[in-house]
Amino acid sequence: MAPVKKGILERLNAGEIVIGDGGFVFALEKRGYVKAGPWTPEATVTHPEAVRQLHREFLRAGANVMQTFTFYASDDKLENRGNNLRLTGQQINEAACDLAREVANEGDALVAGGVSQTPAYLSCKSESEVKAIFKKQMDVFIKKNVDFLIAEYYEHVEEAEWAVQVLKTSGKPVAASLCIGPEGDLNGVSPGDCAVRLVKAGAQIVGINCHFDPMTCVKTVKLMKEGVERAGLKAHYMVQPLAFHTPDCGCQGFIDLPEFPFALEPRILTRWDMHKYAREAYNAGIHFIGGCCGYEAYHIRAIAEELAPERGFLPLASEKHGMWGSGLEMHTKPWVRARSRRDYWEKINPASGRPSCPSMSKPEGWGVTKGHADLIQHKEATSEQEIKHLLELQKKAKASV
Amino acid sequence: MAPVKKGILERLNAGEIVIGDGGFVFALEKRGYVKAGPWTPEATVTHPEAVRQLHREFLRAGANVMQTFTFYASDDKLENRGNNLRLTGQQINEAACDLAREVANEGDALVAGGVSQTPAYLSCKSESEVKAIFKKQMDVFIKKNVDFLIAEYYEHVEEAEWAVQVLKTSGKPVAASLCIGPEGDLNGVSPGDCAVRLVKAGAQIVGINCHFDPMTCVKTVKLMKEGVERAGLKAHYMVQPLAFHTPDCGCQGFIDLPEFPFALEPRILTRWDMHKYAREAYNAGIHFIGGCCGYEAYHIRAIAEELAPERGFLPLASEKHGMWGSGLEMHTKPWVRARSRRDYWEKINPASGRPSCPSMSKPEGWGVTKGHADLIQHKEATSEQEIKHLLELQKKAKASV
Amino acid sequence: MAPVKKGILERLNAGEIVIGDGGFVFALEKRGYVKAGPWTPEATVTHPEAVRQLHREFLRAGANVMQTFTFYASDDKLENRGNNLRLTGQQINEAACDLAREVANEGDALVAGGVSQTPAYLSCKSESEVKAIFKKQMDVFIKKNVDFLIAEYYEHVEEAEWAVQVLKTSGKPVAASLCIGPEGDLNGVSPGDCAVRLVKAGAQIVGINCHFDPMTCVKTVKLMKEGVERAGLKAHYMVQPLAFHTPDCGCQGFIDLPEFPFALEPRILTRWDMHKYAREAYNAGIHFIGGCCGYEAYHIRAIAEELAPERGFLPLASEKHGMWGSGLEMHTKPWVRARSRRDYWEKINPASGRPSCPSMSKPEGWGVTKGHADLIQHKEATSEQEIKHLLELQKKAKASV
Amino acid sequence: MAPVKKGILERLNAGEIVIGDGGFVFALEKRGYVKAGPWTPEATVTHPEAVRQLHREFLRAGANVMQTFTFYASDDKLENRGNNLRLTGQQINEAACDLAREVANEGDALVAGGVSQTPAYLSCKSESEVKAIFKKQMDVFIKKNVDFLIAEYYEHVEEAEWAVQVLKTSGKPVAASLCIGPEGDLNGVSPGDCAVRLVKAGAQIVGINCHFDPMTCVKTVKLMKEGVERAGLKAHYMVQPLAFHTPDCGCQGFIDLPEFPFALEPRILTRWDMHKYAREAYNAGIHFIGGCCGYEAYHIRAIAEELAPERGFLPLASEKHGMWGSGLEMHTKPWVRARSRRDYWEKINPASGRPSCPSMSKPEGWGVTKGHADLIQHKEATSEQEIKHLLELQKKAKASV
Repeated sequence: MAPVKKGILERLNAGEIVIGDGGFVFALEKRGYVKAGPWTPEATVTHPEAVRQLHREFLRAGANVMQTFTFYASDDKLENRGNNLRLTGQQINEAACDLAREVANEGDALVAGGVSQTPAYLSCKSESEVKAIFKKQMDVFIKKNVDFLIAEYYEHVEEAEWAVQVLKTSGKPVAASLCIGPEGDLNGVSPGDCAVRLVKAGAQIVGINCHFDPMTCVKTVKLMKEGVERAGLKAHYMVQPLAFHTPDCGCQGFIDLPEFPFALEPRILTRWDMHKYAREAYNAGIHFIGGCCGYEAYHIRAIAEELAPERGFLPLASEKHGMWGSGLEMHTKPWVRARSRRDYWEKINPASGRPSCPSMSKPEGWGVTKGHADLIQHKEATSEQEIKHLLELQKKAKASV
Repeated sequence: MAPVKKGILERLNAGEIVIGDGGFVFALEKRGYVKAGPWTPEATVTHPEAVRQLHREFLRAGANVMQTFTFYASDDKLENRGNNLRLTGQQINEAACDLAREVANEGDALVAGGVSQTPAYLSCKSESEVKAIFKKQMDVFIKKNVDFLIAEYYEHVEEAEWAVQVLKTSGKPVAASLCIGPEGDLNGVSPGDCAVRLVKAGAQIVGINCHFDPMTCVKTVKLMKEGVERAGLKAHYMVQPLAFHTPDCGCQGFIDLPEFPFALEPRILTRWDMHKYAREAYNAGIHFIGGCCGYEAYHIRAIAEELAPERGFLPLASEKHGMWGSGLEMHTKPWVRARSRRDYWEKINPASGRPSCPSMSKPEGWGVTKGHADLIQHKEATSEQEIKHLLELQKKAKASV
Repeated sequence: MAPVKKGILERLNAGEIVIGDGGFVFALEKRGYVKAGPWTPEATVTHPEAVRQLHREFLRAGANVMQTFTFYASDDKLENRGNNLRLTGQQINEAACDLAREVANEGDALVAGGVSQTPAYLSCKSESEVKAIFKKQMDVFIKKNVDFLIAEYYEHVEEAEWAVQVLKTSGKPVAASLCIGPEGDLNGVSPGDCAVRLVKAGAQIVGINCHFDPMTCVKTVKLMKEGVERAGLKAHYMVQPLAFHTPDCGCQGFIDLPEFPFALEPRILTRWDMHKYAREAYNAGIHFIGGCCGYEAYHIRAIAEELAPERGFLPLASEKHGMWGSGLEMHTKPWVRARSRRDYWEKINPASGRPSCPSMSKPEGWGVTKGHADLIQHKEATSEQEIKHLLELQKKAKASV
Repeated sequence: MAPVKKGILERLNAGEIVIGDGGFVFALEKRGYVKAGPWTPEATVTHPEAVRQLHREFLRAGANVMQTFTFYASDDKLENRGNNLRLTGQQINEAACDLAREVANEGDALVAGGVSQTPAYLSCKSESEVKAIFKKQMDVFIKKNVDFLIAEYYEHVEEAEWAVQVLKTSGKPVAASLCIGPEGDLNGVSPGDCAVRLVKAGAQIVGINCHFDPMTCVKTVKLMKEGVERAGLKAHYMVQPLAFHTPDCGCQGFIDLPEFPFALEPRILTRWDMHKYAREAYNAGIHFIGGCCGYEAYHIRAIAEELAPERGFLPLASEKHGMWGSGLEMHTKPWVRARSRRDYWEKINPASGRPSCPSMSKPEGWGVTKGHADLIQHKEATSEQEIKHLLELQKKAKASV
């Protein structure tokens, strides 16, 4: 029988580094199991072998957390987004838990059940309606006895607070992760204030995931940490950024880049970029360090390799990776062998091979917080009803300032 | 019982488009199952689930060929490159055949056994010694009854000829694919002359794989085709390029780029680049169209989607992909929904998000065909013995001109 | 007889736009009359025809101010920097005044005598010593009866204050222009505080010149304006930026870019960039708008053309320029004729034609305000004495905070 | 009295390097004296001081040739292109000769009278009509006794031949320079064949000017030289390229780049690029080395400085330029002083400072040699009559193949 694993809070309280996994949605889209647009996780039921394999890759790469593949798996989202197989949310969420548990049992990983932002909130449903949706997903997580819960990918701190309040009723540890940048949530609430509200709502771990590149996300978590400390509160911190460079994006992150979601390739981070990110995050006092969209196993492995001196061990997948490219010592060509050293890869400034492409894009997008003019401008692209809802959201936002 | 599948030559003779799979070495390196440097496929034995899953992804994406994951799986290579589990070539090659067959049976795909260039040739072993190595791998393919054979990834046409001569003794259809560019093989033999020699050696299908980007590879296959036609011969043509942009590389392709192999990310092709490639290849009269290093399933799917009008059907994985981004119609943000159209993606010029990176690199590398000066220059990076061998190879090359 | 011209303050008080000239140092360096490094203006005596011609080009382009070419023409600088012709400061400054006046008389321009930062200040000479240097140059300006005075190109507000205090004794209008960015002067005094000190010292016009690109300079002048208004003071504002894009530079501006001063070509602004700058400056309430290093006459003309609707007239040189490229209607090639429209040039995103060059550089440089560590690091490149002086400057800076 | 100067052929026959000047049209456009579109040189009469000054700058920079500023100064062009001052061609050409001679007398330079391509040829006038136009300009050059003649800026070798045939009647040395690339003239005549025809027509010096960057022009002159030598003929060679990088242009050169003519700034060559060009040209056996559009005096000086070892002297303007940046030894900042060395500037890879700009553009343009389809496509942008003429030109071209 396997020894009882230490829980997420025990680990963080003990000062351990917890490595997260990478995002499933983008990785499985590339593999042919998720549809960009709806982004829903029916694959947990229809193609469990593909989901299981991705879990395994992240586990081998060093991840200590297997997040259930339950992104956008709330009932309202599934109905809304063309779940044409008529799978119930219950089925999808249960299958996700089983897969995560199966692989977590193969190594030193915990299972985290995740709930993400809902169409219900965006269309101005009431607090109780939105909370009911979260509760439905949580009930599955309790039944399947996940190790802890994550409310992640929220653009409005209010919705994240509601999620945390629901998840806290489980009695399990709760993490809360927003997809915002240093400028704050879509209502303009600053990262510091967001963090304080999440901690007060009961989250033991707070942080950022998705939407921005690693350095930007670390910067935002630092602002959260400063806010929490200024308020005399305590928390652990997490970060799970994109594996895409986004120096040129606006307040909604990579969504607004013209390349989203089908031409982001030139922005993918190298493993060496990941080393820098892992060190930066660790130095900032963030101990739960993982990834989101764009991550492959080798990105997670790079985090584990960078932090191996602190952790005292390498991940399993390092058997297939010489630290800092040392595996190249066995390459056929001598000048490639000469690249098997840290100095070479740390300094590399990779070319794009695309002479007609620029470095920066102009984000398009429609700043919900930027007023009516923006709304009018994008009128063609949206429905009357959406505009009405967004205007209401704005009113609400202004009232709350 | 499954109906008997049409063979590779029947398909090509009938004018069908045959879609190849993508490369396993790079894809499994990213997933943590192959070590860059040795690049050997022990994973067929140690992690069959990972290899099987990758086969499945390519099958779902539309591939009609499951290549056995037997790259660099010749005995001399395995010994040479740190096969520290002491798996025999026999074990690795047999497992590769079983995995390819298992997945091929799940759809309309053939199994192709592949043999690639050998250290034996590079270190100037005799023709019979090199041929004995090929034969050993081929014997496994015959035992496992693969559908056809591919000699692929040769930088010297002479070695490829030897491989074809061996493979022909099996009685199975034989394809031959070089990893050269428009300037010819490393001894300076032109693509046209290479193709003629391969056809005369018995290959029914000839073409190019790896080392260069799609447009460069298509260009090289065109030169091969011209050579074959000029010689009054007949052949089918195949192309399986990189999924990396390489406008700046020299005669040895991406190996010599300073980014090889760990910082190639900014060069990865988008799915829309793949549409252009598939059309270009088809228009050039190439009917066996696949991929090599850098390919993920979505790249293969894009080939299948571009050629769906000619083939009359979409691949399975298109259920998770709206043609030309049409799945985005269900995205939450209206300005992202506005991207669900062909015109948008066909014209996109993606930014790198890397303001300190240039478009082009200066390839380093050591032109074997460029004479002694180059050898001296790289002396530090190589051993006495290798220099001796390379000088002999050069002498040989010059004698043969 | 020419009518008496309106003075600089009359113009600005009346709400007129005053267009400045461009920088002489860089323009004459390219033409072969100024040496990069010393950057001193002996050419006023040795090659008056070259200086006169440059004045004329700026006048034709619309400039209302002919600045005397007296940059770095203080006695201490001339001695210091290899004035090997042994011209006296008196000779150089007088000749500069005569040339500026001669050309100013040919059109609607005023003559402004300029004094810039001194080696004396940098080497920690006393206030009275530094002021004596300024006075010597000013005496020439009074003798030659220039229309107003500009203290420009100061990195430390303290030195600029001293200059203003001296220049005020002339009874002529005084402008003061720092070469700092939004982060403030080299002692860390903010742009707002700098402006307040300069106004209190007696400057009627305050602003920014050199070191940063137009948009950054406008941003800094805005901060100055906010500071002045917050302090309940009044002033006019001026801006004379670089004609180089510098998004990547640090607090000392383009000096620290690795391309300074001999490889800045790819950064040169187009005339269309100038249109945007002129509009932005005007919208910010800046009415004295000119240029510095990198400007050619066509850049100044573009400012005048952008603001022609407000001013009611075009500059003389517009006879050789169709607004927004309309002169191209007479080009030979039809597709070039098709470019004779505003829309085309406003949207152009010009390529560099340099595929191995990146967009951004890493500035080197040695932040005087960044402490001892930096000093040590650059020790090789500097003398003992300079380090001592810089350390004293730092001490002083810290004491003054 | 000045000693009699050596003529152009005496110099070249003696193996001397002759340095040309830079282009006047672009330089004076920037200064406000030439209108882009018509590009005609009325300034020789209206603003002689501006033209004289530019001659002087090139002379100081090391130029041995003062080309009369007579580009597009044929009568048919002047009428055609809005010469609204009603200056006669005679006036403009005479003034140009006087200015060139005045400055040539100030140093070791010869005066070269230049005739360029005519609207008459493009609109299919007869050989005798076109030749009459050349003769009219030449008569001025004879009257003013220039030192030699240059037929330059021809896109069709036939027109250049006619020009040479006319100029030869003067008895003066004749140079002929085409504005074509390695693919040949607009009728597809190869550089080698063009050169042979020009030599046979009587040109003693043949080469390339304008339209392409230095390395491309040197490459084209090499092809000309090979052609001449293959034909058993003899000639001297000249090259006067753009000072813009144009790796991305088509057969008509920079005209077709979308940035032409008002957004070429990021492409301007540095002085260090000029060093490489001068060496390359000299190594190719080209001894008359100058510049065309985009050149400033410092570019010409760089050519003279690179070839100073061969010539044994530096140009006058080098008194204001430390070789390889050595003047920076006197710069204020120590890290800038550290740049005063050859190694630094030879290796610099300058950033554009423009993160949203790519490296390469897609040339637009209308390949006269590419057939009817292209014509149709650009129909909107051109007149019926032009299409007719271009079709005739094409027919002619095909007939002549």
